[in-house]
Amino acid sequence: MTPDAAREKFTTARSAHLATADSSGTPHLVPIVFALHSNQIAFAIDHKPKRTQNLRRLRNIAQNDRVSVLVDHYDEDWTQLWWSRADGRATISHDPPAQWLTRLTTRYPQYAETPPQGPLVLITVERWQGWSYQAAGHDGVPR
Amino acid sequence: MTPDAAREKFTTARSAHLATADSSGTPHLVPIVFALHSNQIAFAIDHKPKRTQNLRRLRNIAQNDRVSVLVDHYDEDWTQLWWSRADGRATISHDPPAQWLTRLTTRYPQYAETPPQGPLVLITVERWQGWSYQAAGHDGVPR
Repeated sequence: MTPDAAREKFTTARSAHLATADSSGTPHLVPIVFALHSNQIAFAIDHKPKRTQNLRRLRNIAQNDRVSVLVDHYDEDWTQLWWSRADGRATISHDPPAQWLTRLTTRYPQYAETPPQGPLVLITVERWQGWSYQAAGHDGVPR
Repeated sequence: MTPDAAREKFTTARSAHLATADSSGTPHLVPIVFALHSNQIAFAIDHKPKRTQNLRRLRNIAQNDRVSVLVDHYDEDWTQLWWSRADGRATISHDPPAQWLTRLTTRYPQYAETPPQGPLVLITVERWQGWSYQAAGHDGVPR
């Protein structure tokens, strides 16, 4: 799958998975809902219930800005499998740009009543990679 | 969600997401199919097409054995959201124990014709954590 095709796959996904790592290299994983524009991905700390706002994903990004974001499709017919990954660097914005909040609320009606109030994480993608079972015989990339 | 409930959620999932990190702390993400037994999770390098067997997930684990594995459920009704995460340490087995190959092939009929031939990664889980929108108000864990 080409980088352009990998990016296009991202636009079809309603949720993604975010990997961060702390300064000692311990990885951490959470699902996210996100918006994509140009070569940037944003997600927000939102109203979904949390015990604390001192979230490990934010602490990790503050220590180490490298992140990986994955969307994928599982199917019992493995010839239908695909995934797409965005690797890049993240910054935490405590004063989120209005256009990103608009993108998130446009994409997720769930935000209409309770727009995200918390910090917004903005990821600048440095590499798009994708894989599909069907394409991997032709232009597969290393997994 | 209690650690026991988080582990139980894992058994309901057909695929998961694996985060590794290299020695510099750069995270990496791939989907996996897996088997779970006791406090261990295994996945194999299998016949799904790859350009190389020199996979980054294996290189990362060789450098840094800490891994994070996530399963989750997305739903447009966000009150139905949940995820479950296993954090632990991974080892690569080039001579996979027969019982793990049996667990994988039992769980995935897709392996019946082409059992995994490549190395098997065995993760010893040190911490189970789970979250659900509905339970988070009561015993939510930090995300």
